[in-house]
Amino acid sequence: MAAGYWMAGKTHETATFELFVRRLPPNRDYLVVCGLEQAIEYLCELRFDRHEIDYLKTLPQLQNAPGGFWDYLAAFRFTGDIFAVPEGTVMFAGEPLLTVRAPLIEAQIPETYLLSTIGFQTVIASKAARILNAAAGRDVVEFGCRRAHTPEAGCLAGRAAFLAGCVGTSNVAAGMRFGVPVFGTSAHSWILSFDNETLAFEKLQQLLGERTVQLIDTYDTLAGARRVAALGQPLWGIRLDSGDLLDLSREVRLILDESGLKSVKIMATNDLDETTIASLVEQGAPIDIFGVGTSLATSYDAPALSAVYKLVEIEANGIRRYAAKHSSGKRTLPGAKQVFRYPDRDVVALASETAGPGVERLLRPVIVNGEAIVDEKNIRRIQSYARRQIADYGRPGRRVELSVSLSALAASH
Amino acid sequence: MAAGYWMAGKTHETATFELFVRRLPPNRDYLVVCGLEQAIEYLCELRFDRHEIDYLKTLPQLQNAPGGFWDYLAAFRFTGDIFAVPEGTVMFAGEPLLTVRAPLIEAQIPETYLLSTIGFQTVIASKAARILNAAAGRDVVEFGCRRAHTPEAGCLAGRAAFLAGCVGTSNVAAGMRFGVPVFGTSAHSWILSFDNETLAFEKLQQLLGERTVQLIDTYDTLAGARRVAALGQPLWGIRLDSGDLLDLSREVRLILDESGLKSVKIMATNDLDETTIASLVEQGAPIDIFGVGTSLATSYDAPALSAVYKLVEIEANGIRRYAAKHSSGKRTLPGAKQVFRYPDRDVVALASETAGPGVERLLRPVIVNGEAIVDEKNIRRIQSYARRQIADYGRPGRRVELSVSLSALAASH
Repeated sequence: MAAGYWMAGKTHETATFELFVRRLPPNRDYLVVCGLEQAIEYLCELRFDRHEIDYLKTLPQLQNAPGGFWDYLAAFRFTGDIFAVPEGTVMFAGEPLLTVRAPLIEAQIPETYLLSTIGFQTVIASKAARILNAAAGRDVVEFGCRRAHTPEAGCLAGRAAFLAGCVGTSNVAAGMRFGVPVFGTSAHSWILSFDNETLAFEKLQQLLGERTVQLIDTYDTLAGARRVAALGQPLWGIRLDSGDLLDLSREVRLILDESGLKSVKIMATNDLDETTIASLVEQGAPIDIFGVGTSLATSYDAPALSAVYKLVEIEANGIRRYAAKHSSGKRTLPGAKQVFRYPDRDVVALASETAGPGVERLLRPVIVNGEAIVDEKNIRRIQSYARRQIADYGRPGRRVELSVSLSALAASH
Repeated sequence: MAAGYWMAGKTHETATFELFVRRLPPNRDYLVVCGLEQAIEYLCELRFDRHEIDYLKTLPQLQNAPGGFWDYLAAFRFTGDIFAVPEGTVMFAGEPLLTVRAPLIEAQIPETYLLSTIGFQTVIASKAARILNAAAGRDVVEFGCRRAHTPEAGCLAGRAAFLAGCVGTSNVAAGMRFGVPVFGTSAHSWILSFDNETLAFEKLQQLLGERTVQLIDTYDTLAGARRVAALGQPLWGIRLDSGDLLDLSREVRLILDESGLKSVKIMATNDLDETTIASLVEQGAPIDIFGVGTSLATSYDAPALSAVYKLVEIEANGIRRYAAKHSSGKRTLPGAKQVFRYPDRDVVALASETAGPGVERLLRPVIVNGEAIVDEKNIRRIQSYARRQIADYGRPGRRVELSVSLSALAASH
């Protein structure tokens, strides 16, 4: 498409694309937007190197591409503007999460990358919010890298889960790259590698001290709990990873308490999701912290959003046109839009419209003329913001009004 | 765990871990193994740089780690052996897909990376096989990067889908990195960026020539088809992306045929999966090629495998122990195993056992003493192999016998 735009003489046209989600997936009342940091990095660093251009030149589809296009790609920089809602914002279907205004080719090229980057992390942050809601104030740690869709997805899932309110991740790479607190316990292989369970527990305690979390179900959970209790402090917690988590957590709590280990935490894992967690919480299981893997790091019940990236305006030679497709069941609304957030509702209207005092305009400039102007990398501050957003706007039933009409467009022109 | 093993003096113990899938996900009769090339690359290149070690030293969990451990990490190389089934092999639950035999720490460190790398690509290749089965001989192209779990997952999904039999991917990066044929059409934004649809069709045709694929549903599908037909050759195909694909494909086929464009292909997209494809095929829709995005690139109905990585043997000071966990519902079988493939069944038995002539031993050495000895990167050859595997072993009802018993272990010792 880039080569085609170039060949059609459209290098000086300016386009506006909007990234939004058509419909919320099943079991989701809202989205927690995430992935902007990676999107900004990508746009600011996007280049085509010699190796890439040489490959593109071999494609049968590009045999008619004019030589000037290759020079254009070699010098490519993203020089446009990006407007986006801050990471951690609660958003709904039909609301633009990110707007790209740039020369047409520059706006077209990042489509796939932006959809995947923002779509994926938003999927995970939104799932994390659901799981945290089920945990009702108890801690949740992201444990899913081994089931994530590539190790890279695992790292970003750790980031997205923390951003939405998890206390940390088991993914050390996510800790290093994004400052997410890392949690961990030993695996069963740790226990199995020693001649007996007590020796395995002792050796872990020597390393981890007050951070020790003992996995006690390798052979027999209650026997394991007694062995851990006999060793005593230092001990942060024990982990249950099989069996009836309700019964076992109660029995283990008793064993720990009777040994004077009241402050020692019980962590539960084992294919948990919001349903099993809600049930354990409701039944009063004495579990302090849930480790959630597969269901969180893949958003197992709804692993994708219907996120799309649609052309809404195009300007050539000083003339602006509004663009919308009319495809059956997949219509889009023309014109660059803004989301106006009122206390009780959101209104999606043209970006050029005004709103009264106290009404938030959610899309804000983050890249201007190709330069990042907002670069919030303090993930703890984003987490605080996300928690407030979920508390304020994550209740079911919030209204979203679409107020884009052709007459409004005509008036704004 | 690595620091703990080091501290416990277990640097000279040798471990064997097996990677296998506990249960097949819903709607899957078999797995198509994929991801080995990336696993081998990772193991051969695995290092810890200064920046990473400095970060690890800051972790509260590692404050007791002895200084020697950091020197160990700085010099870390994977020096062990890997046995694996070739990519494209059809496998079942409970069968080891990959075996790691290495010094304990070296075998433990890659656990998460291997699970994620092989698990994810195997998920996608297995889903692709299902979709291809539904397509019953018609072509399928992978179109899902925008919904994949990161752009990196999108690239690897393109690879895995091709490996299992798709004709290509829309992901140009997967084409460059892995030699997968790339397919593409314009998006609706291409059409919308021009003053009228005919002009958009003409300009695309000028670029793509005989590779031209016109997206005809932006405004009105049948009107679009007539405009494309009026332009005539060169034209490879048209794409339908909305509406009733059965009716539209029939009507569009008529329009094309009446214009002498019988060789022009009809491609269909729009949230397709194996169910919708099977239905279109069964009803005789004249669709030549299916573009499948979200459902393929995320394996939407079953986005993860219960893949695990379990310690089965450990050897210290010349004494070998067999390891197995007894956790409720999550037992493992001890001893390094081999999968023996008979024409009618697979037998999972100890690696040290023998089998008669003509029985395949599926796990083969791919890394020996840290050096890759098999490096099949010809993805077309892997695809041919996978297609034969699916034809030969992908029928429902194949038996897998587990013949590992403690007596066999004792005998093998």
